[in-house]
Amino acid sequence: MRLVSEKKFLTIDDGIELDCGSRLAPLTIAYETLGELSPARDNAVLVCHALSGDSHVAGFFPDDPEDARPGWWDIMVGPGRPIDTGRYFVICSNVIGGCQGSTGPSSENPATGRPYGLDFPVVTIHDMVRVQKRLIDHLGIKRLLAVVGGSLGGMQALEWSLTYPDMMDCAIPLATTMRHSALAIAFNEIARQAIMADPAWRRGDYYGAATPATGLAVARMIGHVTYLSDTALRQKFGRRLQNRQDFSFDFGVDFQVESYLRYQGSKFVNRFDANSFLYITKAADYFDICQRHGQGSGVKAFSKARTRYLVVSFTSDWLYPTAEAKEMVKAMKKNTLEVSFCEIKADCGHDAFLLPNPRLAELVAGFLDSVAKERGKQK
Amino acid sequence: MRLVSEKKFLTIDDGIELDCGSRLAPLTIAYETLGELSPARDNAVLVCHALSGDSHVAGFFPDDPEDARPGWWDIMVGPGRPIDTGRYFVICSNVIGGCQGSTGPSSENPATGRPYGLDFPVVTIHDMVRVQKRLIDHLGIKRLLAVVGGSLGGMQALEWSLTYPDMMDCAIPLATTMRHSALAIAFNEIARQAIMADPAWRRGDYYGAATPATGLAVARMIGHVTYLSDTALRQKFGRRLQNRQDFSFDFGVDFQVESYLRYQGSKFVNRFDANSFLYITKAADYFDICQRHGQGSGVKAFSKARTRYLVVSFTSDWLYPTAEAKEMVKAMKKNTLEVSFCEIKADCGHDAFLLPNPRLAELVAGFLDSVAKERGKQK
Repeated sequence: MRLVSEKKFLTIDDGIELDCGSRLAPLTIAYETLGELSPARDNAVLVCHALSGDSHVAGFFPDDPEDARPGWWDIMVGPGRPIDTGRYFVICSNVIGGCQGSTGPSSENPATGRPYGLDFPVVTIHDMVRVQKRLIDHLGIKRLLAVVGGSLGGMQALEWSLTYPDMMDCAIPLATTMRHSALAIAFNEIARQAIMADPAWRRGDYYGAATPATGLAVARMIGHVTYLSDTALRQKFGRRLQNRQDFSFDFGVDFQVESYLRYQGSKFVNRFDANSFLYITKAADYFDICQRHGQGSGVKAFSKARTRYLVVSFTSDWLYPTAEAKEMVKAMKKNTLEVSFCEIKADCGHDAFLLPNPRLAELVAGFLDSVAKERGKQK
Repeated sequence: MRLVSEKKFLTIDDGIELDCGSRLAPLTIAYETLGELSPARDNAVLVCHALSGDSHVAGFFPDDPEDARPGWWDIMVGPGRPIDTGRYFVICSNVIGGCQGSTGPSSENPATGRPYGLDFPVVTIHDMVRVQKRLIDHLGIKRLLAVVGGSLGGMQALEWSLTYPDMMDCAIPLATTMRHSALAIAFNEIARQAIMADPAWRRGDYYGAATPATGLAVARMIGHVTYLSDTALRQKFGRRLQNRQDFSFDFGVDFQVESYLRYQGSKFVNRFDANSFLYITKAADYFDICQRHGQGSGVKAFSKARTRYLVVSFTSDWLYPTAEAKEMVKAMKKNTLEVSFCEIKADCGHDAFLLPNPRLAELVAGFLDSVAKERGKQK
């Protein structure tokens, strides 16, 4: 039987005051829930999505055709899956700044009646999390069993654990970091430059006209390469030519890897808003829990935490390398927090957390189970 | 006393027939020489430049102002330097396809009287090397003491050793590979897409009009990041802000690394032709000596070689990682070639071969000295 998920919306009329000082109001959050909230309301798992994700974490929409692809983490979330919707009440919402139903730069600016564009305020991960908190309140949940996410979703899980330390039993940050490194900022900045270099971008004021599709495609290709690994690309493509016996001796497609990237770029522009790409990458670049919560110190930052952690890194992830995860785990342990850490051997780069991985599945399932059982005992 | 270098030109009226099948004629090579050719003509060292380099390998032009910067490898080439111009006759020429004096897409197409643009034929590393051979013939040199180069220059050194195995005593390929990997192709392709996405590119026909400066700047930024390393960026910039106390909350410059990249991008567009960037990166992507010389096998390819090699890789070079250098050295050794190999510990990424490095200086100086002495004995 198909797991069916429906997009819902929560509107907060008075919005929230953002880190930048502006008030974002009204504010809409697009979200989906899977499974049933227990009578004790103690089985809620908040899943946070990465850059290009959305609230559709698993399953299908009611009207999806037969051949539709399920939600972005369907391998991990569903009945009998590691994040078991037969047992947990799973919540996933689109981040603010995004373009899949939550308020973002493509939403109507109440001051003008037109899309915000660059008048949308720059948001932070901390802002995203504070909006999610409003959703959790709305759902009548006092304490989450877990906040789980990879990459930008992992940043949200970490931020949750320090902003609302008493609202969760555990956090599961995957393939992520305490603070965005110079290398990660560099790639994001180049991707943003590619968008802003597209004349169709028009300083963000392109809604209703041609979109900056070529710029966004280049931006996506840059991002996409950073999610892969040297090894993965060798294995997947090597130097194989795309439907040809010899070089083209022109600037069309010669190699399979080129064709793949062009495809990834063009596919992305049909489903994502260029301004949202700017806003969400900026939020990632600003992310630094050491600075926000510890005056620059990770150890100090985690002194706020009162939760269990499962931290996972992947060997071939060069965007958020294991060294960064280890530094984070060290900071957690110095605060005598209960931390499980695993570096998973995976050739597929940063994207590993989104791909089928028995070790990841086992770790997340086992950790959630143990946290849920402990919570059950404490009642 | 200042080392002075002058740009010279050699024109080959009948040109050469390229790998793509077209004849490129006439053909001009811009080159510079430093030091004196010995009476026995046995002290010539050909230095091959990388993507953004040119014939100006060291020293200053006669009319350079006091504060001019010297050639791109001045730290390695000059009187008393590892490639000692007091002892060796150093030759460096601009690659064809380039934009610093050798025939390239910005040169006049004799068929139209206008710049070639995309009518310029796609060239290969093998083509570049065969043109250099014509220059060496012109200079009356039968056998080079060495062919030296890093990155794309290293590809040329390797190609020389297999295309003209009896014309050299040694080859010194630095920070390079036998064949361009999928990851390296991916980054080049994205950079090319950034250029071609710029409306000012006009399918390469922009000469005399506005240049595709924004596209080229993004392309350069992509390239530039791949030349650096995570560690180098952490050390050099970390998360330091650029002349500000707090985030901008807009899409201007927040971080030093962003400012640095924008500067690198904008500086590059003043000195480099966007079409040349397309042609030279394509030549790099096509590079595969295993395929060209060994039907896919590196071991078979190096069976053609009859030269000594010094191969150097750098620990933090993720564009041409040590594993690739080791694979190459293995293929050389299986042919009982005399090979010196060193992986130099360096945090600065692929660019390490261009930066001051005592170990590199010592290795190159010592190797050249030993090759020169051996050649002296053989007389």
